[in-house]
Amino acid sequence: MSDLYEKHEETLSKARDVIHTREEWSAYPEMPSEKHFGEGSKQKGEDDFKALLGGKYEFKVPMQDAEYVQCDATSPYGIDMSMQYPKLDKDTLLERSQQAQKQWRKLDNDTRFGICMEMLDRLSKQSFLMVHSIMHTTGQPYMMSFQAGSAHALERGLETVAYAANAIESTAKTTQWDKVTGKDKEGNLISVKMDKTFKPRGKGVGVMIGCATFPTWNGYPGLFASLSTGNSVIVKPSDKAILPLAITVDIMREVLQDNDINPDVVQLAISNGDHSYTQDIVQDDRIKMIDFTGGNTFGDWLKKNTDGVQLYLEQAGLNNILIESTDNFRAMTSNIAFSLSLYSGQMCTAPQNIYIPKDGIDTNDGHKSFDEVAAGIATATEKLLGDDRRAFALLGALNSEDVNKRVQQSADSNKTFVLGMKTADYADFPDAKTAKPQLIKVSKDDAEMYEEQFGPIAYVIATDDAQNALELVCDSIEQHGAMTTALYSTAEDFKQQAMDEIADAGSPLSVNLTGGVYVNQSSAYSDFHGSGLNPAANTCLTDLGFVAPRFGWVTVREQTN
Amino acid sequence: MSDLYEKHEETLSKARDVIHTREEWSAYPEMPSEKHFGEGSKQKGEDDFKALLGGKYEFKVPMQDAEYVQCDATSPYGIDMSMQYPKLDKDTLLERSQQAQKQWRKLDNDTRFGICMEMLDRLSKQSFLMVHSIMHTTGQPYMMSFQAGSAHALERGLETVAYAANAIESTAKTTQWDKVTGKDKEGNLISVKMDKTFKPRGKGVGVMIGCATFPTWNGYPGLFASLSTGNSVIVKPSDKAILPLAITVDIMREVLQDNDINPDVVQLAISNGDHSYTQDIVQDDRIKMIDFTGGNTFGDWLKKNTDGVQLYLEQAGLNNILIESTDNFRAMTSNIAFSLSLYSGQMCTAPQNIYIPKDGIDTNDGHKSFDEVAAGIATATEKLLGDDRRAFALLGALNSEDVNKRVQQSADSNKTFVLGMKTADYADFPDAKTAKPQLIKVSKDDAEMYEEQFGPIAYVIATDDAQNALELVCDSIEQHGAMTTALYSTAEDFKQQAMDEIADAGSPLSVNLTGGVYVNQSSAYSDFHGSGLNPAANTCLTDLGFVAPRFGWVTVREQTN
Repeated sequence: MSDLYEKHEETLSKARDVIHTREEWSAYPEMPSEKHFGEGSKQKGEDDFKALLGGKYEFKVPMQDAEYVQCDATSPYGIDMSMQYPKLDKDTLLERSQQAQKQWRKLDNDTRFGICMEMLDRLSKQSFLMVHSIMHTTGQPYMMSFQAGSAHALERGLETVAYAANAIESTAKTTQWDKVTGKDKEGNLISVKMDKTFKPRGKGVGVMIGCATFPTWNGYPGLFASLSTGNSVIVKPSDKAILPLAITVDIMREVLQDNDINPDVVQLAISNGDHSYTQDIVQDDRIKMIDFTGGNTFGDWLKKNTDGVQLYLEQAGLNNILIESTDNFRAMTSNIAFSLSLYSGQMCTAPQNIYIPKDGIDTNDGHKSFDEVAAGIATATEKLLGDDRRAFALLGALNSEDVNKRVQQSADSNKTFVLGMKTADYADFPDAKTAKPQLIKVSKDDAEMYEEQFGPIAYVIATDDAQNALELVCDSIEQHGAMTTALYSTAEDFKQQAMDEIADAGSPLSVNLTGGVYVNQSSAYSDFHGSGLNPAANTCLTDLGFVAPRFGWVTVREQTN
Repeated sequence: MSDLYEKHEETLSKARDVIHTREEWSAYPEMPSEKHFGEGSKQKGEDDFKALLGGKYEFKVPMQDAEYVQCDATSPYGIDMSMQYPKLDKDTLLERSQQAQKQWRKLDNDTRFGICMEMLDRLSKQSFLMVHSIMHTTGQPYMMSFQAGSAHALERGLETVAYAANAIESTAKTTQWDKVTGKDKEGNLISVKMDKTFKPRGKGVGVMIGCATFPTWNGYPGLFASLSTGNSVIVKPSDKAILPLAITVDIMREVLQDNDINPDVVQLAISNGDHSYTQDIVQDDRIKMIDFTGGNTFGDWLKKNTDGVQLYLEQAGLNNILIESTDNFRAMTSNIAFSLSLYSGQMCTAPQNIYIPKDGIDTNDGHKSFDEVAAGIATATEKLLGDDRRAFALLGALNSEDVNKRVQQSADSNKTFVLGMKTADYADFPDAKTAKPQLIKVSKDDAEMYEEQFGPIAYVIATDDAQNALELVCDSIEQHGAMTTALYSTAEDFKQQAMDEIADAGSPLSVNLTGGVYVNQSSAYSDFHGSGLNPAANTCLTDLGFVAPRFGWVTVREQTN
């Protein structure tokens, strides 16, 4: 048993339990408190971040012979994030990756798991550096950058290591096999005995293509799933969000080298605006698995152009809320307002389309008309974001100029606004691009209008009745895909019907959320992120199907009689 | 718990144990004895087979509105196998398949497993019908038709049901989740409590494309993996081997209907020479997974033309034997002779290329020159097949006119034959196409000559020495793929090195086989068939990676406080 495995065994063992029981648990501190990270850690993280800005990002374990390329970028909060990153050509990357994998795949499984666990642990210790790098590349607010960007991303990574350990240990390492194969001339049974050994081996080189909004949370599952099952990984960040994954690769390479493993098990690939660089990498025969989160254009390109590679894709979707009735109108509207506001609707799990019967709904405050429900959500949103300091903590900034343009164009259109767009002013970041949610009233027949509008734009959709809303929601899941759906209903029969039908349409479902959990959030070890059952994603993050195909088995059998 | 689940629970439970322990076990009788199948069962199977010939194959639970199409075929043993099979157009097949899946995916898992187990059990009971249908479509000899065609195929099917049960039950059905999310105004902890339900759901419609040589053994794993995880399946047999899969589908539909399940969960698709029919089916968006065993042409086409579909492929490979030394020369040559002869080398696991150091090897009978080793194998083969009744029991018949032509052309060439081709005469089947193995001597530099020659053609290849042989074997595995490799060595250091390097090259390996187990055979629950690690197959039959990606998870969570 390796030292690192022993060091982290208790944590891994607990993770392996809870992916079965699905109970609430976490391994890494999710509060940005020095109580967990040590005195001075907060300031040190900020100082380390600032020291990186504008310069060359130097890996502690360099990628030899890499050329430094200038990557220009501006933080969604307005600060200059231009830096230079090391870049290698495709063939060097792939040759080294394949070479490194030869050693990595042969390691004793426990040793490999121990190294993965140590990587997670060291990444956790750098959470106060990660928080700034996430915030200033993605535009996430501070608390989310800390939680989703570091702590929860690490939980998702650990979750895949736990699945890898379960999948690998589902087969005995060795067996003694004994089979009667016939009789000899005297009629005595003849048997053949064999010693068999079963060797799990990673399938080769994986590519993890990072997204611009959640480079770590969406990236760590694939990254650690590939690594823990014995593959090397090329990490290709979005040009908009390089730093968080550069820090990740840096720490991982250091852990590898500290343990006398070829650090090229993990390498960084900087496309820097050159799409053909990424395309050439993913189309190389040595690539056996690709993890991608992002838009349909490149996702669909990957499906068409990577022949027979194992693809784990999360693409665009359209998330719905269905309101049939509620016994806590105020808490419901507050909960929805929070979900619409969090990171300016730029989460793949953020709700966009809110289906409400045109004749209104029953609530604990009596019957509410469609307009009253819509106004309730609008009021709750205004109240939540009225104070710019609270807006700063929740909204964050707009991830890209595309989103900024989209929200401006929408705001300037002649739609029926229940809530018009407003901006927020952040004291520390006067140049931040911000937008509070727009809420637009539409008829169910305006389906084209409420197709995906990534960003803080939401729709209240008047349906014939609750049954009609349910049909429309299920159709939308099947047609456009969905990462999440929310349902509010106190009518037991309708609720059960909706729970069944939305599950069958293939969307994760949250029912009657009124407290401090939001439909946008999925909890590691407990909630499957995505279902693999609708066009938004072809896999769950994380289940056995996400991890087990990344390795194969070699049976070595030797006759012993 | 369903009645069928209860009926078969003990068997399934044992299968779930042994896929972990990998010990020797079997669920279905592998000897064609009436002791297992009841008095008169043997004759009844033959009578039932003969009654089918020449007529319409009528399903006991018909595919409504199917048109009967004439499918002409001749048994490799020479008898007329022309029959009429029911055929539906693509859209009808897919619509019905999708419709049927909606019910199937929602069944309680135990109910679904119970139905799959009942299908296997009823198929086993028809082993004496299956044996003739396998023999006269594939050309397998009788005993192999019984074992590989029925008993062992069923074991491989059961194995996937066991993996499905393990994968599905790896997640609790429900959990109560409780998380502290903050404090109220009085400083008391606030928590959110949720009831969560986790619903596994099949991803949609699968296609199982049967092969011409092992329609059931290679087909049942994918078929039962898809079914047991909640998918419907369209079974597309090879035009050369329709009957075994028609019988399979027939029995499955009957079991479905007996249990009030829509029988279209399993349907038959007859391409009948029309490639575009198959291509249209597999390219339909509703298809989520494809299982295929066969040549590289269609396998590579599938990789290129089925965008983002989960592919489980077994394609062409090149299987090697490396002889460094042996302590039982006679038993080694006998074992190899058997492997070369079994089903005329038409197994995807049959060895073709035998690497021997040019200066010969050490044996229990002293040093043997290269030519002596080659002659030993040739002599053992001649002895094994000298008697035509024994040849009939081992060789079977040539699967196709392609194979027949290939062996003729090879036999007519001016190669250096250690063993020339001979035919066999079978008393009961005067028109059978037969060929005993050819053994051809080549230098290691004639690599093009010993590329894959599907059929009874093998090569003895003179290498510089044992190390050189090991390098060539590993290169061949990585370049051409391999389903099996055999090694003979008594030199402990070399043996360990070869075991390591061949495992790392990614081929299953059998060492020092001298008894009644052959390199061609892989044993369900114990040996992984293929590794998923070389070009011959992208997956193991069977491991978690073969089963788990066929379904996803829906999380339904409801706040309870």
